[in-house]
Amino acid sequence: MVPNALGRLIPEEIDGKKLKPFMGAHAGHGGGRKAAPPIRAVPDYAKKLRASLDETIDACGIKDGMTISFHHHLRNGDYVVNMVVDKLAERGLKDLTLVPSALFPIHEPLIGHIENGVISHIEGSMNGPVGRACSLGKISKACILRSHGGRYRAIQDGDIQIDVAFIAAPAADHFGNCNGHSGPSACGVMGYALADSLYADKTVVLTDNLQPFPVFPWVIRGGNVDHVCTVEKIGDPELIISGTTRITRSPTRQLIAEYAARFVRDIGMLDEPDFSFQSGAGGISLAFLKYLGDIMREKGVVARFARGGSNRYLVDMLEEGLIEYILDGQCFDLAGVRSLRENPRHLETDPFTSYCYHTKGNFAPMVKVGILGATEIDIDFNVNVNTHTDGWLLHGIGGFTDVTDSQITMITAPLLRGRLPVITDSVTTVTAPGEVIDVLVTERGIAVNPAREDILARLKGSDLPVRTIGELRDMAVSLSGVPEKPEYEDRVVALIEWRDGTVIDTVRQLKVQA
Amino acid sequence: MVPNALGRLIPEEIDGKKLKPFMGAHAGHGGGRKAAPPIRAVPDYAKKLRASLDETIDACGIKDGMTISFHHHLRNGDYVVNMVVDKLAERGLKDLTLVPSALFPIHEPLIGHIENGVISHIEGSMNGPVGRACSLGKISKACILRSHGGRYRAIQDGDIQIDVAFIAAPAADHFGNCNGHSGPSACGVMGYALADSLYADKTVVLTDNLQPFPVFPWVIRGGNVDHVCTVEKIGDPELIISGTTRITRSPTRQLIAEYAARFVRDIGMLDEPDFSFQSGAGGISLAFLKYLGDIMREKGVVARFARGGSNRYLVDMLEEGLIEYILDGQCFDLAGVRSLRENPRHLETDPFTSYCYHTKGNFAPMVKVGILGATEIDIDFNVNVNTHTDGWLLHGIGGFTDVTDSQITMITAPLLRGRLPVITDSVTTVTAPGEVIDVLVTERGIAVNPAREDILARLKGSDLPVRTIGELRDMAVSLSGVPEKPEYEDRVVALIEWRDGTVIDTVRQLKVQA
Repeated sequence: MVPNALGRLIPEEIDGKKLKPFMGAHAGHGGGRKAAPPIRAVPDYAKKLRASLDETIDACGIKDGMTISFHHHLRNGDYVVNMVVDKLAERGLKDLTLVPSALFPIHEPLIGHIENGVISHIEGSMNGPVGRACSLGKISKACILRSHGGRYRAIQDGDIQIDVAFIAAPAADHFGNCNGHSGPSACGVMGYALADSLYADKTVVLTDNLQPFPVFPWVIRGGNVDHVCTVEKIGDPELIISGTTRITRSPTRQLIAEYAARFVRDIGMLDEPDFSFQSGAGGISLAFLKYLGDIMREKGVVARFARGGSNRYLVDMLEEGLIEYILDGQCFDLAGVRSLRENPRHLETDPFTSYCYHTKGNFAPMVKVGILGATEIDIDFNVNVNTHTDGWLLHGIGGFTDVTDSQITMITAPLLRGRLPVITDSVTTVTAPGEVIDVLVTERGIAVNPAREDILARLKGSDLPVRTIGELRDMAVSLSGVPEKPEYEDRVVALIEWRDGTVIDTVRQLKVQA
Repeated sequence: MVPNALGRLIPEEIDGKKLKPFMGAHAGHGGGRKAAPPIRAVPDYAKKLRASLDETIDACGIKDGMTISFHHHLRNGDYVVNMVVDKLAERGLKDLTLVPSALFPIHEPLIGHIENGVISHIEGSMNGPVGRACSLGKISKACILRSHGGRYRAIQDGDIQIDVAFIAAPAADHFGNCNGHSGPSACGVMGYALADSLYADKTVVLTDNLQPFPVFPWVIRGGNVDHVCTVEKIGDPELIISGTTRITRSPTRQLIAEYAARFVRDIGMLDEPDFSFQSGAGGISLAFLKYLGDIMREKGVVARFARGGSNRYLVDMLEEGLIEYILDGQCFDLAGVRSLRENPRHLETDPFTSYCYHTKGNFAPMVKVGILGATEIDIDFNVNVNTHTDGWLLHGIGGFTDVTDSQITMITAPLLRGRLPVITDSVTTVTAPGEVIDVLVTERGIAVNPAREDILARLKGSDLPVRTIGELRDMAVSLSGVPEKPEYEDRVVALIEWRDGTVIDTVRQLKVQA
């Protein structure tokens, strides 16, 4: 084990693969060459429609030890991961590597396949039960967690070699052109599947809504697709996206959102041209949009763009003219899907153009302020979004580390979650280093990273309760006490990868009372 | 020299590169891996705007012997090729390889740069003066002519390694997102530049219309762009696209167009579902659209799609509802540009999705009938579009060989052009083999390739004048006499590449009377 730039210990090698320890948020400058997919020829693709999933799997020649991938735009309503892995298990396949962009509670049946050796490795976000199984050491090889941009990078750079990409498609044609705009399982944006389609050896489109050629926009291009197969249902529309997203009703969280919006106003950001922002679809983020909208209306400010996760509050702002463009990475509710389909100022993005660190620039550094949540933040501003204070691995990174390239990165969080302090001396797991986190907003005060003297200067004259992060930590601990540290086994069960492919931290197996 | 599958003699090697002789139109099945561009990182692209072309060229580090590329969507109105090459010549650079998708008469000043050693090699279409210079043996190395799809393939497969791609952009933002939809130099579609942006070591966007971020659609994605530079004018709007395209007034050519449309009707193609077609923007093609439109209206037929080159006649058909979608590869007039920008059923394509032979399928084989012109066709249905009967290399391939994947490929041509027969015993240069050419339509009759017995059967009962191609050749020769063969030097000055990267024919230096 060697210490990385944050002092976290990283194995030199794991499962036969050499690891590169984290060197600093922007220390990586690329190098080497992108993956080079095989060259195929048109005469071999005269007919892509397959009669069944079985025929499709036969055509792909899937073997033991192969790597298969999925996107998560169907979120907790996705049927495709379970459908495909069940089928591969039936066929007696073993030792598969799964590369989902994310897994959700609906994918809990994978645990059986992990236990019986069908799946031996996962590179992807594991929200909920599969993450819990990982924490328990059930998955043979160490899992790898990456951000959305980090996943694109890993596939592009050849760190992940996908044998077969299975792409759930709400609307597709026989050629394989597809998108998520319409159909019974419409999910809106579908950009997380882009890298898979470009670099996988074989790409399969699974759809419950085969449309006449041409399906447009071809978010996934048929020229990258080997097989198209219709299935009865790719997902449960009720669960794919919320009917509506909801603003928090908690007064604590509303106060945090209000402070966040006032912060944006008080540092003068709304008086500069080309305001832009990104916030999520959690309760605080949605409340932030409401407060921000009020201030923008009052000041007559129009944002040049907002990055989505789109939701009805963001769409309302677009339609009202408070935002000129939504640059959307995923749709969180039906209003987002409708707006993407109908509004020419609601633009679909993907991790290449939004987030990937190994490109000639991306959109993230153009965002003026990014508002993010966290499970923990420590007095060095290091942030954890993957594990809880009790050590359980329960969340993916999502776009978190990619969004930290915003000109100001703000964490909004209550002092306590359950009975545990959110602000600690040292986070359980480092997802993002303190050097990229600029502001913490809590219900008891706002702490600015001391490295950002410019922000502190801009806050002069504000009546916001500015504190040091140490003061906020003390308040949190005085309310809750210092939590017990979890007990671990030696084994590393997951690696937290930074955007550039280096390892920023590890997650160890939990010691569980028998 | 070894004979290829058509018996044409191909050098085993030229300028140190081994050549692969043509094996048959669909004999190639790919193999090997695509080019792997270098991996770059976001922190090195914080600011892409350069103050001048000089600063841009400095930033690119262009050296003697490098390869630079251009697209030709500005056609005969393009200023960018001359502007850049003049500047490189001023700097004393030598031995450059030029990879334009096509050159036009406006690029005649390149001949000076060829003569003084600035340019030693061209891989791209050479329409007019530069082609003439090639025929005279002025270009040091043997030029390579490819179709639009063939050029994409060559860049994708790494046969061409572009050091710096210069992309003329009618609308661009500071990040490098760009398209051709608007601005003083609007050209509509801009897909020919796609491969360059994806695979070049460095990509430069030159624009006379810098717009606020985000320019959308990002036909060229900023994430692939190194530098953005504004120049006064990228082209002459009067010459970039015709104000209006015009139907032929020649009664002979009108008759050919009428026969072509009646052929489509008489073989019953309009009675089948999902009619689709592609024709160009030449005088006969436009007249064909008029006759076809009349028949479609009469029969109540709606085409599922038409492939562009878009023009006002095609746009009229779209707007009238005779066509559901235009899938456009380039805009030939202002009506095409306007429609692309405004009509959601007018879709922008590029050579990857339309034409490239080394993909998992493309659009070409979905087209029911493709209507093409030719300079010569021989009794084996081999077609020449590159040279004239007198041996001068004056035209690029364009999309010609890619379109031959249509379900029926039809050549429309008059029996004579000037005083020379279009139908010969053996074409001066083979651009496409007879195996992919199905029908020849002339003013004196229609010849069907005997290999297409199905088409002959479908023509039973038609009152069209069906002849053998031998009969048409005899008619042509009886009118004009047998033309003299040009005299050549030994040197091969150009290679005609088939879609898969094999060489279908060569062009030799012309012996010119002193």
